[in-house]
Amino acid sequence: MRRLPLTLLAASLMLAIGSANAATQTTVPAAAVKTAEQLRDKAMNDNTAYEIVSSVTTEVGPRLAGSPADARGREWAIAKFKALGFDKVYTEEVSYPLWERRSEHAEIVAPFPQPLDLIALGYSAGTPKGGLTAEVVKFDSLDALKSADPTKVKGKIVYVDARMTRQKDGHDYGMGSAVRVGGPVIAAKMGAAAFLLRSAGTDANSRTPHTGVTGFTGPDGAIPAAALSNPDADQLSRIVGYGKPVSIKLDLDVGFNGTYKGANVIGEVTGKTHPDQGVAIGGHLDSWDPGTGAIDDGAGVAIAMAAGKLIHDMPQRPDRTIRVIAFANEEMGLWGGKAYAEKHAKEVSKFQLGTESDFGAGKVWLMTASVKPEARGAIDQIAKVLAPIGVAYDASKPGGGGSDLSQMHGKGMAALTLVQDGTNYFDYHHTANDTLDKIDPKELAQNVAVYAAFSYMAAQADGDFGSAPGAFANDGAEE
Amino acid sequence: MRRLPLTLLAASLMLAIGSANAATQTTVPAAAVKTAEQLRDKAMNDNTAYEIVSSVTTEVGPRLAGSPADARGREWAIAKFKALGFDKVYTEEVSYPLWERRSEHAEIVAPFPQPLDLIALGYSAGTPKGGLTAEVVKFDSLDALKSADPTKVKGKIVYVDARMTRQKDGHDYGMGSAVRVGGPVIAAKMGAAAFLLRSAGTDANSRTPHTGVTGFTGPDGAIPAAALSNPDADQLSRIVGYGKPVSIKLDLDVGFNGTYKGANVIGEVTGKTHPDQGVAIGGHLDSWDPGTGAIDDGAGVAIAMAAGKLIHDMPQRPDRTIRVIAFANEEMGLWGGKAYAEKHAKEVSKFQLGTESDFGAGKVWLMTASVKPEARGAIDQIAKVLAPIGVAYDASKPGGGGSDLSQMHGKGMAALTLVQDGTNYFDYHHTANDTLDKIDPKELAQNVAVYAAFSYMAAQADGDFGSAPGAFANDGAEE
Repeated sequence: MRRLPLTLLAASLMLAIGSANAATQTTVPAAAVKTAEQLRDKAMNDNTAYEIVSSVTTEVGPRLAGSPADARGREWAIAKFKALGFDKVYTEEVSYPLWERRSEHAEIVAPFPQPLDLIALGYSAGTPKGGLTAEVVKFDSLDALKSADPTKVKGKIVYVDARMTRQKDGHDYGMGSAVRVGGPVIAAKMGAAAFLLRSAGTDANSRTPHTGVTGFTGPDGAIPAAALSNPDADQLSRIVGYGKPVSIKLDLDVGFNGTYKGANVIGEVTGKTHPDQGVAIGGHLDSWDPGTGAIDDGAGVAIAMAAGKLIHDMPQRPDRTIRVIAFANEEMGLWGGKAYAEKHAKEVSKFQLGTESDFGAGKVWLMTASVKPEARGAIDQIAKVLAPIGVAYDASKPGGGGSDLSQMHGKGMAALTLVQDGTNYFDYHHTANDTLDKIDPKELAQNVAVYAAFSYMAAQADGDFGSAPGAFANDGAEE
Repeated sequence: MRRLPLTLLAASLMLAIGSANAATQTTVPAAAVKTAEQLRDKAMNDNTAYEIVSSVTTEVGPRLAGSPADARGREWAIAKFKALGFDKVYTEEVSYPLWERRSEHAEIVAPFPQPLDLIALGYSAGTPKGGLTAEVVKFDSLDALKSADPTKVKGKIVYVDARMTRQKDGHDYGMGSAVRVGGPVIAAKMGAAAFLLRSAGTDANSRTPHTGVTGFTGPDGAIPAAALSNPDADQLSRIVGYGKPVSIKLDLDVGFNGTYKGANVIGEVTGKTHPDQGVAIGGHLDSWDPGTGAIDDGAGVAIAMAAGKLIHDMPQRPDRTIRVIAFANEEMGLWGGKAYAEKHAKEVSKFQLGTESDFGAGKVWLMTASVKPEARGAIDQIAKVLAPIGVAYDASKPGGGGSDLSQMHGKGMAALTLVQDGTNYFDYHHTANDTLDKIDPKELAQNVAVYAAFSYMAAQADGDFGSAPGAFANDGAEE
C-alpha cells in the first residue's frame, strides 16, 4: 500500500515542477526545434556566405574605417542586404576620430643598414617630415618595459620583442594585444621617441606585419608606433644581439585628421508576431587596410547576412525579428558597437539574444551563454541542435556577445559567445594576408548553420533570455 | 687441362684490364675516401654554414646587384673568407648594366578601386612619372598570349595568369620563369603598355610577390613589367571574371642607370701538390632585394665557404686547390658566371670538377655528373660516400654545374649537379620571405657534408674528370 501513495506523490511532484516550468522557463517549441534542424542542415550546404564574403573582399577590398573605401563598403552592404531580400535596410550614424595611413618606411641605419618591413599601428602619430632617427632599446615583455629606468627609454625607440604562439582559442592574443595597445602609451609616457613591437601574430615566418589599434585616443601624447613582421623582429633582435648601438630611421606619414561620420548598416527580417523584439547578430564592415578584410571581418558579416537570408527564405517570417548588423569601425575601438549600444540601450529588453561573429572563418566549436537561469533550458535546446555539427556547450562560462555586441551585452542584452577555431586566425589577422583564399567555404557554412539555427530558435522561443537594463553586469564575460 | 689455361687466360685478361684501368681510369685513393667520410661526418654536425648565412643576411641584408649593398656584400665576403682562414682571397671584376628599384605602386582603378601588391621585375622599364593607366587583357598562358590578336594587346596591360605548383625538383619553374622572362618581351613586341604575371611562385596564399629578371636587355624596347602575389592574382582574375573592363594604374619608378662594376669574390684553400689545379664550388653573393637572400643564395655561399673551411682545417692541405667563388649578379643574367667563364676558359683543363649551390637550403637528394667515361668510377666512389646521407646517384643524366658554373661547364669543365629538395623553395624564392628563418641548420649542414666530401675526393683523385676545351658540349645539361 505504501507503494502506490509514494508513486502518486512522485507523480504529483513532477506535475507541479512541470507546471512551474511551463510558467517561468523559456523553451523552444518542438516545431521550432525541428525547423532549426532543417535550417542547420540546409546552411551546411549553402554557399551564400562565401559568395557574400567574396563579393565584399573583391568589390570593395580593404575597408579602413574613414577611408574612401568605408563609404563604398556601406553602399555595398546596403545593396547586398537589399539584393538578399531583407525586409528593412537602414543605417545609423557612427562618428569617430579619422585616422589615416598615407605611407610608411623604416630602415636600420646602424650598424647594418637595411630596410625593415613594418606597419604603423592605429592612432599612431606620424614622424616629423623626413623621418625620425633614434637608437633602439629592446625589452622582452611589457612588464620589462614598465619596470625600466625611464632615463634609458627617453628619446629612444622602444622595441618590445614578445612572441605569440598558436592556440585554438587564440588566448595568446591577450598578451599580444596588450603589448600593442598598452606598450605605445607606456613608452610615450616614459618619453620614448617611438614604439616598435614584434607583431601580435603567430605567423613566425611571414613578412606580413600585423597592424591594430593602440591605446592612444588622439594626437595629444601619441608617438609613432609600428609593428615589425616576425622575421623582421628576428632580424632586429639578432642585430641588437651583436651588442652595438642600433639606430633606426622611421618615416611614418600617418595620423589623426578630424572626425569622420560613418554608419552601422542594418538589415532586418521582420518578425511576424513581435516585430519589435528580435535577435541581434552581425559582424563588422570595416577592416584593417593591408588585406581585404576576409577573415576580419568580411566572414562575420557574411555569416550573419547568410543566416538572416536563410531565415528570410522560409515560408513564413519568424515570430521575432532577425536583425543583422554590419558594424562601423570596430577595429579602432568598437565605435560602431558603442554607438549602437548607446542608441538602443533603452530597448535592451527587446533583444532576445545576440552575438557577433568576429574571429575568422573557422568552425564554431564551443558555445557559452549569459542568460537568465530560466532560459538555460532553451540554451540546452540550442546546444542539442548545434552538437551534431561539432559545437560543444560549456554551461559554466558566460557569453559575451562578440566584439561590438559586447556593448549591448554591457547594457543588459542576453548574449552567446560562439567560439570559432582560431588556430590560424592570428597568422593572418590585421595583415596583408587577410584575403579570401584563407576562407574554407565548408567551414564558413558551418558558422552560418550555427547562426541560423540559434537565431531562429531564439526568435521562436516561448519566453525571453533575461535581457534587461543592467542584467549580466557581473557575468565576467570579456570581449 | 683446359681449365688451367682458361683460368690463366682470364687472369691475364683481368690483369690487362686492371693495368689499362690503372693507366686511364680516374680513381680516388682509399685513404682519401676514408678522409672524405670523416669530413662528411664532421660536416653533418658543424654549424659553420649556418653561422655564415646568418652573418651575411643579418649584417648585409638584401644584396641587389649594383645597389649600395652590393659593395657591402663584397666587403663582407672578403672579410669572411679571411676570417675563415682561406689561403688566398681575391676579387675579379664583373661589369653589368645597373638596374635600380626605387618605388612601386599599383592599384585597380575600375571597376573596383583598390591597391594591388606587386613587385617590378628585373630590367623592367619604369612607368612615366605620375603612372600609367590602361585596361587589362588577361591570358591563361604564354602560348595564349603568343597566339593573341595583336590589336587586342596594343596599348593594354597584358596579364598572364599561369599558376606554378610545388614539386621536389621544382620543375614547374621552367614554365613560371618562361612566363616571367619571355612574357614581357613578347608583350612589348605586340605593343602592350605593360606586363603583369601571377608570380612564378608556389606560395598560393602569401601576399609576397616574386620578382626575377625579364628577357629585356636594356632600355630599348622594355616596358613596365611586374609580378602580382598569388592572392593579388586571384583577386585580379576574379575581378576580370565580372566581365567589365578592368583598368589598372601602375607607378613603377625603376629602370636602367648606366653600368656597374662589381666583382666575383674568391677564396682558395691552396693545393699542396697541384696548386694550379682545383675544384670549383660556390654560390652567388647577390640576391633579390625584397628578402635578405637567405635561401637564394646566402645558403649556397655559406655551403661552399663552410666546405672549404672544413677542408682547410685538416692537418694537411689537399693535393689540389679548393676554389670557393661568391659570384656577382647571378640574378640578372649570370653576369658573374659569364665573366668567370670568359676569364678562365683557357684554363678549363685545370678544373677537376665543379658545381654551384643555388637551389636553397634543403637537403641534397640526387647527384648527376658530366665527366669523361674513365672518371665514372671516381664518381661512383663519391656516390658511395654520399649515399649514407641520403644522396642518390643517377648515372644516366648529365651534370650541369649549377647556375654560374654552368658557364664554365659550357667551356668544358667536368661538372656535377647536386639536386636539393626544392619542395618549398619556390614559396620564398625572390620574395620578401627569403629570410634566415627559412633555413634548417641540419639540412644546411647536410649540404656542406656533400660539398666537402666530393670536393676533397675530386682534389685527391688520381686522374682527372675530363675537363677540356669544348668537352661536354652535347651532354644535354640545362641550367
